[in-house]
Amino acid sequence: MKPKSQIVNLPVYKAGKPIEEVKRELGLEHVIKLASNENPYGSSPAVLEAITRELANVSIYPDGSAAELTAVLAKHLGVERDNLIFGCGSDEIIALITRAFFLPGDETIMADQTFSVYKSNADIEGAVTIEVPLKNGTHDLPAMLAQINDKTKAVWVCNPNNPTGTIISEQELIAFMDRVPSNVMVVLDEAYYEFVTDEAYPQSISLIDRYPNLVVLRTFSKIYGLASLRIGYGIARPEIIDLINRVREPFNTSRLGQVAAMAGLQDQVFVQECSKRNAEDREWLQNEFSRLGLPYFPTQGNFILVDVNMPSTTAFQSLLKQGIIVRSGFHVYPTYIRVSVGTAEQNRAFIAALENTLAENVAARP
Amino acid sequence: MKPKSQIVNLPVYKAGKPIEEVKRELGLEHVIKLASNENPYGSSPAVLEAITRELANVSIYPDGSAAELTAVLAKHLGVERDNLIFGCGSDEIIALITRAFFLPGDETIMADQTFSVYKSNADIEGAVTIEVPLKNGTHDLPAMLAQINDKTKAVWVCNPNNPTGTIISEQELIAFMDRVPSNVMVVLDEAYYEFVTDEAYPQSISLIDRYPNLVVLRTFSKIYGLASLRIGYGIARPEIIDLINRVREPFNTSRLGQVAAMAGLQDQVFVQECSKRNAEDREWLQNEFSRLGLPYFPTQGNFILVDVNMPSTTAFQSLLKQGIIVRSGFHVYPTYIRVSVGTAEQNRAFIAALENTLAENVAARP
Repeated sequence: MKPKSQIVNLPVYKAGKPIEEVKRELGLEHVIKLASNENPYGSSPAVLEAITRELANVSIYPDGSAAELTAVLAKHLGVERDNLIFGCGSDEIIALITRAFFLPGDETIMADQTFSVYKSNADIEGAVTIEVPLKNGTHDLPAMLAQINDKTKAVWVCNPNNPTGTIISEQELIAFMDRVPSNVMVVLDEAYYEFVTDEAYPQSISLIDRYPNLVVLRTFSKIYGLASLRIGYGIARPEIIDLINRVREPFNTSRLGQVAAMAGLQDQVFVQECSKRNAEDREWLQNEFSRLGLPYFPTQGNFILVDVNMPSTTAFQSLLKQGIIVRSGFHVYPTYIRVSVGTAEQNRAFIAALENTLAENVAARP
Repeated sequence: MKPKSQIVNLPVYKAGKPIEEVKRELGLEHVIKLASNENPYGSSPAVLEAITRELANVSIYPDGSAAELTAVLAKHLGVERDNLIFGCGSDEIIALITRAFFLPGDETIMADQTFSVYKSNADIEGAVTIEVPLKNGTHDLPAMLAQINDKTKAVWVCNPNNPTGTIISEQELIAFMDRVPSNVMVVLDEAYYEFVTDEAYPQSISLIDRYPNLVVLRTFSKIYGLASLRIGYGIARPEIIDLINRVREPFNTSRLGQVAAMAGLQDQVFVQECSKRNAEDREWLQNEFSRLGLPYFPTQGNFILVDVNMPSTTAFQSLLKQGIIVRSGFHVYPTYIRVSVGTAEQNRAFIAALENTLAENVAARP
């Protein structure tokens, strides 16, 4: 049973340790997970009510076309229903795009430190990934543009970028899109869209009419607090949505995910409140990093990439022992950790732990 | 943006009408869906309790490796943890197998009337599907064996077969496996495993040690009553599981799906009770078909393919008007409909409606 040659050496995804395992192994009662950019305020109460109501139908297949959710979201976004496709997280939309479009030898362009799922899926399809260095932690669109050639199938722009949290502006995006050939797809991943407060941020949906090669990805996993339910979506011209649909499994989203997403959409007060608190709390964290003399990238997301001035795995382990899980191991930034913005209380606990970690590290120096 | 050439002409999946839409369009108060082989008894009460308990974690990503569920299922099945992989329904495992193994021009063998997802995924990968006619509605394993050549990557055996409900025996399977070259994967889809009462049915898991090219698929969508939650699994040798894992998205099953599956596994009394009722009720339906003079395939699943002696879409529409949704349009069996075994009450309502449909059809003849 010979697999595709390109998948043989792909890394198998290593899952992070579950909180329960961390508690058990380290004998900790209380563990704070600031590793996956989840919403620390959970989800709207309306979401839990909607799920509870839907439990009577747990044995019934979901509507594979997510017709009701599609209608609600189309109205919310001001797009047509055939502009939308849902996936098992926006991760799955990324996989579907590559499965529908990428051939072995095709080239695809992305930042050198960005969401890893773009590259893993390009690898599966045997496409060649061209990684363009971030500039001050930000997508270098002119440099990415310069890499486009006849083999280029798609360019990935994560905005805000994961893990740096930086954004490109509408002006920069338009200057870029004006120069990208119309046969090259640009995938704009806006998983953290609702956390952005910078007014220069693109109103990307309004650009889809102008650029038929633009695909926007968003998710219910982040501000809507539905990470456990695996539901995200893509927005693009109907011709593109139609092609992606051809490689979608008939029942790729769950019934509970669909009703939860609808309930979440209908509680925009919750979304606005979470966005506001996040903006305040990331500001507080950034001020703390300044106080501690730690460089960081100015973030528009619900996470911050901060330079802890030691190997990131050292900091990761030290924080873990204190019951705080963060993310380390970003190859371009070996001394940085990514921390999610938590509740004010979680953030204070993190900063206290980080101060211990920094002190330990100074003490350990020869 | 040029897609893969093989996907351009693929049919886009057309979803069935939601029950609510059928009610609205036809002005019906009560609609019975016997179209998707769901469990008419829902799921174990323990499932709903487990989901309700887990709602507190709805904003937290699932454990991508499903470690706890893997341990529970491995123990239940008597296999090792590295023999298992979970998917967004067993549909996704089918997709992952083709994505990991199928190259354009590879050949794959299946029955001419079987679960459609095997062929749709082979098409996506540009593989060539060899369809072998069923013999009396049953997989013709010697004829399938005769189609194997140097290009063959995999053979799909749906057992019980969807839509005919027929099975192949352990003896037939072993005779087949003994002759299949070890570099050809055999995927044994046992979605309806728990409904089978025929003692000749294979104990397939015990065959995995003997045949390293065997992959068994099962699901929580059918007897466990978790169709809405999208969770199924594959069982195979660790080398194969490892390769499939390389093309799996990190978070392909939901947190609620995982806890529901664990709770379902722990209530085997529910499973046995549903299997027993299904066996009695499919017997009753088969006797009714005999009384009405309608040929059918003897089923081991929770559905029956029955010849209604008219174009299946005619019967479908007539039943729909009476508030009963069945499945029609099986190209090899143009006068057959597939009906799920419902509760005793639903089955009686279906038979009453079917008698009207048969009478209408006789009356309509010139």
